[in-house]
Amino acid sequence: MSSDRLIYLPLGGAGEIGMNCYVFGYGPEDKERLILVDLGVTFPDMDGSPGVDLIMPDISWLEQRKDRLEAIFITHAHEDHVGAVGHLYERLGAPVHARAFTANIARGKLAEYGLSDKVVRTTSAWPETVQAGPFSVGFLPISHSIPESSGLVIDTPAGRVIHTGDFKLDKSPIVGEAYDPDLWGSVAKDGVKALICDSTNVFTPVAGRSESSIGSEIEALVEEASGMVVATTFASNVARVKTLAEAGERAGRSICLMGRAMRRMIEASITTGVLSDFPKVVPVEDARSIPRENLMLLVTGSQGERRAASAQLANGKYNGITLKEGDLFLFSSKTIPGNERGVIRIMNQFSQMGVDVVDDSAGRYHVSGHANRPDLVEMHKLVHAEMVIPMHGEHRHLREHAKLAQSNGYTSTIAVNGTMLDLTGHAPKVCGFVETGRTYLDGSVKIGAMDGIVRDRIRMALNGHILVTLILDEDNEALGDPWCELRGLAETGTSNAPLVDCLEEDLSQFIGRADRKTMMDDDKLETALKKAVRQTAQSEIGKKPEVTVVISRLVA
Amino acid sequence: MSSDRLIYLPLGGAGEIGMNCYVFGYGPEDKERLILVDLGVTFPDMDGSPGVDLIMPDISWLEQRKDRLEAIFITHAHEDHVGAVGHLYERLGAPVHARAFTANIARGKLAEYGLSDKVVRTTSAWPETVQAGPFSVGFLPISHSIPESSGLVIDTPAGRVIHTGDFKLDKSPIVGEAYDPDLWGSVAKDGVKALICDSTNVFTPVAGRSESSIGSEIEALVEEASGMVVATTFASNVARVKTLAEAGERAGRSICLMGRAMRRMIEASITTGVLSDFPKVVPVEDARSIPRENLMLLVTGSQGERRAASAQLANGKYNGITLKEGDLFLFSSKTIPGNERGVIRIMNQFSQMGVDVVDDSAGRYHVSGHANRPDLVEMHKLVHAEMVIPMHGEHRHLREHAKLAQSNGYTSTIAVNGTMLDLTGHAPKVCGFVETGRTYLDGSVKIGAMDGIVRDRIRMALNGHILVTLILDEDNEALGDPWCELRGLAETGTSNAPLVDCLEEDLSQFIGRADRKTMMDDDKLETALKKAVRQTAQSEIGKKPEVTVVISRLVA
Repeated sequence: MSSDRLIYLPLGGAGEIGMNCYVFGYGPEDKERLILVDLGVTFPDMDGSPGVDLIMPDISWLEQRKDRLEAIFITHAHEDHVGAVGHLYERLGAPVHARAFTANIARGKLAEYGLSDKVVRTTSAWPETVQAGPFSVGFLPISHSIPESSGLVIDTPAGRVIHTGDFKLDKSPIVGEAYDPDLWGSVAKDGVKALICDSTNVFTPVAGRSESSIGSEIEALVEEASGMVVATTFASNVARVKTLAEAGERAGRSICLMGRAMRRMIEASITTGVLSDFPKVVPVEDARSIPRENLMLLVTGSQGERRAASAQLANGKYNGITLKEGDLFLFSSKTIPGNERGVIRIMNQFSQMGVDVVDDSAGRYHVSGHANRPDLVEMHKLVHAEMVIPMHGEHRHLREHAKLAQSNGYTSTIAVNGTMLDLTGHAPKVCGFVETGRTYLDGSVKIGAMDGIVRDRIRMALNGHILVTLILDEDNEALGDPWCELRGLAETGTSNAPLVDCLEEDLSQFIGRADRKTMMDDDKLETALKKAVRQTAQSEIGKKPEVTVVISRLVA
Repeated sequence: MSSDRLIYLPLGGAGEIGMNCYVFGYGPEDKERLILVDLGVTFPDMDGSPGVDLIMPDISWLEQRKDRLEAIFITHAHEDHVGAVGHLYERLGAPVHARAFTANIARGKLAEYGLSDKVVRTTSAWPETVQAGPFSVGFLPISHSIPESSGLVIDTPAGRVIHTGDFKLDKSPIVGEAYDPDLWGSVAKDGVKALICDSTNVFTPVAGRSESSIGSEIEALVEEASGMVVATTFASNVARVKTLAEAGERAGRSICLMGRAMRRMIEASITTGVLSDFPKVVPVEDARSIPRENLMLLVTGSQGERRAASAQLANGKYNGITLKEGDLFLFSSKTIPGNERGVIRIMNQFSQMGVDVVDDSAGRYHVSGHANRPDLVEMHKLVHAEMVIPMHGEHRHLREHAKLAQSNGYTSTIAVNGTMLDLTGHAPKVCGFVETGRTYLDGSVKIGAMDGIVRDRIRMALNGHILVTLILDEDNEALGDPWCELRGLAETGTSNAPLVDCLEEDLSQFIGRADRKTMMDDDKLETALKKAVRQTAQSEIGKKPEVTVVISRLVA
């Protein structure tokens, strides 16, 4: 047994914030039995992944070893932790374990693929544990920004590992379990080999604030409002939704939830018992007839998502409701980097309607769900593990977190996606590198990020596209002139003649001059035509477009 | 003369931050003599303007009235104020007036189009004035984040207008003139009709800080550094570049400027006399042989621009210099909303190299160049104009600024791009709407934002592209099968057969079934083929691509 080892391998989430996917293994080298922690998604953008629907980790490595995979554990129900369960489950096939609320959400994801409820097994909180091969895994409650978030206590023959999941140190989180240092201390007291730890807020120098600290500010704001009040937050932040709803209720307003995700999360919370005293809500149909000063909407779309309720309201009308001068729109949220443009667009649309927009720029209406720098130090000390392995962060977060741990005397290292660490000894050792990447859900199919498909789309977006068709007869003579079609390009260039005419003229001249060898060889001819097209385009409009050439040869 | 009126018409910059372009007119209705204040650009992004090089205001309205245009005044040399002068000058043809430093930059822009130096006339600061038809215009020095920024004193027969340009209230701006309340007060003392006022920082509740307030923090940081120090800021912020260079010099480091814009701005500052005591700089060739602990680079690329020096250094090497573990990279800048992804990418690249990245998240290494809310109040009171017209802001900034002015007893209104205001009376009156928009520089040609060209590119990026070619003989019979080419689409869909085969098969079947009427009619046939392609693609890959159909008819 001395050759058995304990390994850690992030396939997603380490080197980025999103698509969390962490493998642990125990056993002889290359025969380790495996468990997976989290299987999340990240979101596409126009810059790098236009037209893509969702981004998830490339799990090829794990799929090739699925016979060694014992189980999948989901720490909490955020999309970046549970979002890929439906899309990737069939490639892995292991049972999924989660606490009740998370399990409810995971089952919904599987149902979209027609997969059975039974795939997901509901587990109670620590001290209950799940046996998974050589692993014994328990869900250790911790506060975050969604109900029932949990760290994982992962017991192995090589020792205990604690994987924090996403967490903050909140002793009064409104919904769900509070941070309980005694519980965490008791789990850690007999020694912990490794703490795998959330790095998101390592750059935030002050201690985090409790979810309960913003209730009175929100109440005061809603109390003062004279028109309709609309508030948006992350739909999964059930505590916040409750705080907002209670503020509305106290101000004598009827509460209406808008947006599928918002209703889904509240429903799951009530079904699973994590939420028991949510204010009464009115259906949308009734909301329309309630005077605006007596109404408060809680809506999806805090990140400016184009299809969410907030964007629809900003566009003018949603579910028969239109905002107007004197109404108030509250972003009880932060804008995730990269989403600024979308959020600002909505703010300006509301401004045009005369709606007052309030956001968290003064720090009054939102708190983060992640542990800040001093909170991380507290967690390091509480668990007092032999080593601290930063996860859930971009490279800069992981690096800063490792430095922080080291400065407090803990052994630490940076392990980005694909870095396999051997945790068996007293310090982490890099024991391999695995090729990782991203899988795109594109329409209904999955494609690789490096397949060149999305790269081609980006090129068309940057350069435009020119199509050339040419028909040749059996003697390799052109039948008629080459034909060009432009897409995404200026119609007229510097010569003031239509670009398409310039192109066809230049190509005709080229064909007229081309030797027999070129005319006989499709590849050669295509290359030459592309070059000619690019030259003409460059001189006419200063761009080198993407070019597709179709040569049709008629046979007698 | 009683029918003469004073008008104000923003063509850019009011309803956005960027591409400033403000028209003032005086005279009989529709015969007003005109002046233009600023002619700037804004920058494209993948979301809305992929492949575009620059965005500038649509000046069609002004171009159609160029015979009435007396002059163009440029308040300062930021790209969003002067950047379109080269690209649009020939469509307007009026003399350009600016102070020496701004004129130097403007001449450079014109030279790129082969336009004469003489187009730009250098003007001294107030009390010098330029006579332009019924207008007398003077440049009133004010502090900002570039040398020689000026407000404009615009005297008209209907009264005095003050256009602030971009400004902050900085009494020790390091480079250039300090904010001089006595000077501004003296100009305003006999009454001002309208204050056209910068709105950028209306949401920042505390008074702005002086450029001189961050020198000691920067010095301390550089002093402590042990490896190479690299700092980036906006190249045009000459005061900041000087502060950074002096911090390096005091720490015994040689200073090297990297990036064309950085060198261009320092050169223009020295040439025009606005900067006289800049530390000695070493050329890049010499920098390579200087020990890293004795070197400080000042580089372009504070916004993560892909081609700038900072991005090149992050990619590994630039001008023979490579950063490494223990070096320090300072962002002495703020990230403009929308640029977060690019900046974060660079930060993570540096993190991977072991370089410590310091930014302004703690507010120590950057100050804004714009007046904050209390500063705006001070300016309103100092000028004490009959009306305050907010400019240089998105709608939300203009609205907040108008409310702020009103709350202090000033008449105000929101005038976004295209809104013509009559300022003749005691309150602004909307007297017309002009169609405005954006002109894209795309390669070497200018296209309209609404021409559909960029829309087509975005569609290709989102949906991919399928090309169909079909050859018909003189009897309208297909010669061979339809041919499909994909670009930016998955090769295989749900049926596991190549998508291109599925498409060609379905199209062949369609052709086989098509009636003679369809086969004879190109439009009908094209529409039908597009529909068939989209249906097959939707069922195979869940996407509806852009489709180009080329039908070639052979004639006998």
